[in-house]
Amino acid sequence: MNAEIVATQFRFAVNVLPKEGILDPQGRAVEQSLPHLGLAGIGQVRVGRRVELAVDAPDAAAARGLVDHLARELLCNPMIEQYAIEALGAISAARGEVGG
Amino acid sequence: MNAEIVATQFRFAVNVLPKEGILDPQGRAVEQSLPHLGLAGIGQVRVGRRVELAVDAPDAAAARGLVDHLARELLCNPMIEQYAIEALGAISAARGEVGG
Repeated sequence: MNAEIVATQFRFAVNVLPKEGILDPQGRAVEQSLPHLGLAGIGQVRVGRRVELAVDAPDAAAARGLVDHLARELLCNPMIEQYAIEALGAISAARGEVGG
Repeated sequence: MNAEIVATQFRFAVNVLPKEGILDPQGRAVEQSLPHLGLAGIGQVRVGRRVELAVDAPDAAAARGLVDHLARELLCNPMIEQYAIEALGAISAARGEVGG
């Protein structure tokens, strides 16, 4: 039996941010703190969530499908938020007897 | 006077996540919801914040310095969190009379 990939772990981040045009009170709070910190030139602040996770799946498309399901069902409120999925890399584990 | 760049706007994201080894109750809550969603194979969930912003600065290094200052002073609690700065791009505006 030749070596075969028995498991691949994919890492993703889901970035959830307020939709354009939706009031973002946390972003406003950061902007209002800028003068107290002596910081000029910073604006358009939006505050959201970042969720990092690992997925065991046979391939990248299947892994991304699971993450998309999770984002839609649990992580993002589609009325007021939008999300983007970011691939962070993959680790494969191989097992078997090469040339056996 | 030749055309000169009068303003450059840089966009960044600051990703703030719980430090390794720090309890992450939001991540646990997501993991405990996975069976109810019928999702298998997802783990190592960490929940943090993502802050997107724009910076007007003369160059990318100066812009990143302002973002780093903001992250250290306001966005990240260094006792329990770590942050990473992600460059999202830049927009330059030029003005002047070419060959004038």
